[in-house]
Amino acid sequence: MNITHIEHIGIAVENLEEAKKYYQEILGLECYAEEEIPDQKVKTAFFKVGQTKIELLEPTSSDSPVAKFINKKGQGIHHIAFANPDTDEALKEVENKGIKLIDKKSRKGAENLNIGFLHPKFTFGVLTEFCS
Amino acid sequence: MNITHIEHIGIAVENLEEAKKYYQEILGLECYAEEEIPDQKVKTAFFKVGQTKIELLEPTSSDSPVAKFINKKGQGIHHIAFANPDTDEALKEVENKGIKLIDKKSRKGAENLNIGFLHPKFTFGVLTEFCS
Repeated sequence: MNITHIEHIGIAVENLEEAKKYYQEILGLECYAEEEIPDQKVKTAFFKVGQTKIELLEPTSSDSPVAKFINKKGQGIHHIAFANPDTDEALKEVENKGIKLIDKKSRKGAENLNIGFLHPKFTFGVLTEFCS
Repeated sequence: MNITHIEHIGIAVENLEEAKKYYQEILGLECYAEEEIPDQKVKTAFFKVGQTKIELLEPTSSDSPVAKFINKKGQGIHHIAFANPDTDEALKEVENKGIKLIDKKSRKGAENLNIGFLHPKFTFGVLTEFCS
């Protein structure tokens, strides 16, 4: 395992436009990209803060995992993504150490990254992503 | 406002020793410091990941804000802290823009930083800290 930095922090919001305004006008961050990810049923907005991105996530459907998160826990920090040289290798390594995976193999996520999620029941409640 | 990077991410855990093992043995991160913060009724363990620290927080009392968070939402990501040159100035600036504060003035937090929290009702559910 060779985690280099926190690639991004995913934040679940009900209304992307309103949340964007807060990050732009109050915190003074610049939104450098927006993207819809049909696979995860979300639309996203990205901000860069040093090495790390903030990824705002608004569900586009009531059966989106992010919609379910908001229903259960309210708006807030949804996941943390650790940058790795090779997502598939990192997934295999933690699985061999007994961690249950959501994604057995990497898939394409936002910004064309190879991503894979670990199960939060095995990571002390933190939905954890590897990406490369 | 001049946020330079994400200083740390606070993660609420029920058992610091067990969570530490996960971050050390599964994710391969090094715990470089531990500290008890009586003011916030938590004990903490720190890991460095690139520019950003992960701060694990175990409540030391049932009336700790972190204990209340765990009771309500379960273990997981508790807050995000943005590095700023001057916490008091940053607090004043967002207050002038209509954001309610938890801390009107900075106080001393872990690692002797000047810290101040914004109210999550005004930050789209994300408990947000400034530190310098």
